[in-house]
Amino acid sequence: MSETLDIWQSRFERLRANKLFEAFVIAIIILSAVLIGAKTYDEASRFEQVLYYFDWAVTLFFLAEILVRMAAERRLRDFFRSGWNVFDFLIVVASLVPLNDSEMVLLARLLRIFRVLRLVSMIPELRVLMAALVKSIPRMGYVALLMFIIFYIYAAIGSFLFADVDEFLWGNIALALLTLFRVATFEDWTDVLYDTMELYPWSWIYFLTFLFLTAFIFLNMMVGIVLDVMQKEGAQIEFESGEGEAAELQGLREDVRSLREQLSRMEDKLDRR
Amino acid sequence: MSETLDIWQSRFERLRANKLFEAFVIAIIILSAVLIGAKTYDEASRFEQVLYYFDWAVTLFFLAEILVRMAAERRLRDFFRSGWNVFDFLIVVASLVPLNDSEMVLLARLLRIFRVLRLVSMIPELRVLMAALVKSIPRMGYVALLMFIIFYIYAAIGSFLFADVDEFLWGNIALALLTLFRVATFEDWTDVLYDTMELYPWSWIYFLTFLFLTAFIFLNMMVGIVLDVMQKEGAQIEFESGEGEAAELQGLREDVRSLREQLSRMEDKLDRR
Amino acid sequence: MSETLDIWQSRFERLRANKLFEAFVIAIIILSAVLIGAKTYDEASRFEQVLYYFDWAVTLFFLAEILVRMAAERRLRDFFRSGWNVFDFLIVVASLVPLNDSEMVLLARLLRIFRVLRLVSMIPELRVLMAALVKSIPRMGYVALLMFIIFYIYAAIGSFLFADVDEFLWGNIALALLTLFRVATFEDWTDVLYDTMELYPWSWIYFLTFLFLTAFIFLNMMVGIVLDVMQKEGAQIEFESGEGEAAELQGLREDVRSLREQLSRMEDKLDRR
Amino acid sequence: MSETLDIWQSRFERLRANKLFEAFVIAIIILSAVLIGAKTYDEASRFEQVLYYFDWAVTLFFLAEILVRMAAERRLRDFFRSGWNVFDFLIVVASLVPLNDSEMVLLARLLRIFRVLRLVSMIPELRVLMAALVKSIPRMGYVALLMFIIFYIYAAIGSFLFADVDEFLWGNIALALLTLFRVATFEDWTDVLYDTMELYPWSWIYFLTFLFLTAFIFLNMMVGIVLDVMQKEGAQIEFESGEGEAAELQGLREDVRSLREQLSRMEDKLDRR
Repeated sequence: MSETLDIWQSRFERLRANKLFEAFVIAIIILSAVLIGAKTYDEASRFEQVLYYFDWAVTLFFLAEILVRMAAERRLRDFFRSGWNVFDFLIVVASLVPLNDSEMVLLARLLRIFRVLRLVSMIPELRVLMAALVKSIPRMGYVALLMFIIFYIYAAIGSFLFADVDEFLWGNIALALLTLFRVATFEDWTDVLYDTMELYPWSWIYFLTFLFLTAFIFLNMMVGIVLDVMQKEGAQIEFESGEGEAAELQGLREDVRSLREQLSRMEDKLDRR
Repeated sequence: MSETLDIWQSRFERLRANKLFEAFVIAIIILSAVLIGAKTYDEASRFEQVLYYFDWAVTLFFLAEILVRMAAERRLRDFFRSGWNVFDFLIVVASLVPLNDSEMVLLARLLRIFRVLRLVSMIPELRVLMAALVKSIPRMGYVALLMFIIFYIYAAIGSFLFADVDEFLWGNIALALLTLFRVATFEDWTDVLYDTMELYPWSWIYFLTFLFLTAFIFLNMMVGIVLDVMQKEGAQIEFESGEGEAAELQGLREDVRSLREQLSRMEDKLDRR
Repeated sequence: MSETLDIWQSRFERLRANKLFEAFVIAIIILSAVLIGAKTYDEASRFEQVLYYFDWAVTLFFLAEILVRMAAERRLRDFFRSGWNVFDFLIVVASLVPLNDSEMVLLARLLRIFRVLRLVSMIPELRVLMAALVKSIPRMGYVALLMFIIFYIYAAIGSFLFADVDEFLWGNIALALLTLFRVATFEDWTDVLYDTMELYPWSWIYFLTFLFLTAFIFLNMMVGIVLDVMQKEGAQIEFESGEGEAAELQGLREDVRSLREQLSRMEDKLDRR
Repeated sequence: MSETLDIWQSRFERLRANKLFEAFVIAIIILSAVLIGAKTYDEASRFEQVLYYFDWAVTLFFLAEILVRMAAERRLRDFFRSGWNVFDFLIVVASLVPLNDSEMVLLARLLRIFRVLRLVSMIPELRVLMAALVKSIPRMGYVALLMFIIFYIYAAIGSFLFADVDEFLWGNIALALLTLFRVATFEDWTDVLYDTMELYPWSWIYFLTFLFLTAFIFLNMMVGIVLDVMQKEGAQIEFESGEGEAAELQGLREDVRSLREQLSRMEDKLDRR
């Protein structure tokens, strides 16, 4: 019994490592993405029945594929050790939510969309990119916090001062935060400015200081991140390129030391005579 | 008497250094920020009395906290030596302005908003960020001055030439500066352009040269700042990584010098015989 | 016969290498570009006949020029080995499509526009720039793919949720992709936001997460590309600057080795005596 | 006679080098800038007479100042050797155009605005910045040319295809270039897109390829410029930091050479005996 299991496991392992199988999985992911896109067209309602069956076929295939990959591991625990496997597992499980239940239909549809993300876990280059992105999150975190503090203070001031100018833009701190984000993206920000300047002619100070502060911090943040990463990479390059020279110097020093020993030997001989 | 003072001082010192106390202070700052935000909602008027007492509680807590930190120092002068302490002190003192005075109510409210900034002085990572920002101000200063000169010249030209096109946009040099800042942020800049082009068909030269100049200077500024910082950091890395090699070379040279002395001794012996 | 061919070939080769001839070709390209521009003015219809003959003259000149360059090669195969020659050849051949055929007139006109691109193949500095651009395409490819996956997922969600808000913006996944690209360029994105927020008050989460994700990936991409290129260039600089020192160290080591040989000789002499 | 001239010259030289005199000149420049700004306000008409005399006073002061600086040089030719002196001279001469002539009044006013630029020539830090900007112009030139070629080709295509959509936006190649520049700044570019998409549903290809091309080239240009400058600076740092080590290595090699000479002398002595 255990032997047949072993045979099957190695078969699954070979299947999983098969380049053709991998390409096929990627093709199915892309097909499922295209299906999701196709369903957004009104014309798709004519093929609803076909699309429905297609969808189930894709869901079942993904289920089968993840079971194959689970079975290919010696122990189930090993499978869940990789973050990407957990990621794939969650996406596949989430897409098992039944579609026909009228209440859940929207949620099920949305969850199926995330199957496109499986492309990221299937293509190694994208996996590397994602890992780099995730690694840069803490670096960004404190700058984001600082930015948020400035936004919050300006939003509080804005909603105290300008609430009577435009209730929709400055009514409460949440609306003010949204308005400030809009101003920071330069999206029709002069409309906001001109409106408030009618009642408060000096309000341009509020807007210009806000824009300069955010732009200034953003710029410094970018420069900081570039430098931060560079320093680490640069130090590594230095280290690697320096390694050759350091070895050379080490060798030289040993040569000189052996010279000294030889000389000492010679001096001894001279003395002895 | 002095002994009880010493005991109290060390107690305050221990309290100040307590991680839990620090976390509690941060929690209170965040709570006070949330309170400020809550007050911007119309629904908050129902809880006005509660919020009022909360506010006084927070104010008193901050006062107590800063007094603890003052008492923890051996001499009061030491407290004011740190810029961040002065910063905290000013914010706490400013928030002591009474709220009930109808004239001052707006000012008092605004001053209380700045209490959120105490987050920056409490979290070390934000303090580092702020120090880096402050250090980059002089570097930016002269570029800002150059930018302002260009804005000023274009604003003067604009308000001379286009004042009859749109009094609101080009009426005087201050309005023209604001309009140019708007054009520099690409905010509905073609509306401004098309209006002036109706009267002055060649005015696109004015706008395009302005946009190219500002973009060109801005780009160069960014590159310059990146390089400026990098050069300093780079020189430091070089220096540190170079230190090892320099020491190695120094050692080698001394080895060779001791070799020469040994040889000279031997030559002497050869001569003497 | 073969000799006259050889004479003509070397004549063509000299003509091709002639700086004056090159400048003349560039002048003709610029003239042809100006002609194309001139034809877009209504006033140009008066000179239609003249422009028509000019156009044929330019076309024939380009044909002659490329034939000269072909004849200057020893073998025709050598001509097509350079990508830029193939590029020029295709542009010249494409512009031979007859203009008078009413059906093809638009296509012929469009094809003639691409003659301006010959400037790129004629000016060496632009050729270097283009080569650098082409080399950076694969580097950008995977980031573009990642970006597209995120756009696609958001577009699918958007067209599922917001199709009833605005059929024109969210009607199907293609329209939703275009709308998201518009939002990513900050072009009147608050109009889109405010419209959807009327029906779905929480839709700001959709837009803000989308904007942060794209901005975050874009920023990381830029930093990544700068670092990627820098690392390569930096390694090269290191290598070149390191070369001098490495050679110096190598020389030193050989000097020390020759010292040791001399010492060994001397020791032998001492021993022999 | 010549002696009095010498005395006066050295007096002028001392005046020119005087820090207080320099500060006074800068103050006058700023005052003249403020006067120019003041004249753009309607209220300024009341003080027109005063402003007029002020203006002449400033003009005369600038004339006197430049004469002082000329007289401070040993030979007049030396004065014109510095580009900044020529720059100042031209600005001062240009502002001598009489104001009262009704025809020239606008030109005279415009020329007086450029006096603000004298701030750049007076403040050394700004002079350094300007020199860096001027140095970066050729580096930008070829990228600008490449960009222009792409704009030109797209503008030609646009004015051929879309002239019937909107005569104002695509009527001829100049208007099309302006429209494309507007699209490249993302300024209401979707309005342009939606209009053309009504007649040509596939026109989004035209706009998206254009936006991607320009953004792509712009990004590469920025990266290229950063790297270009960095490489030069980096090489210099390397060189400077390497200098110390190179000298050390040189010294070591000479030490080893002197060792060899000493050994050869000793070997000779051994042989001779």
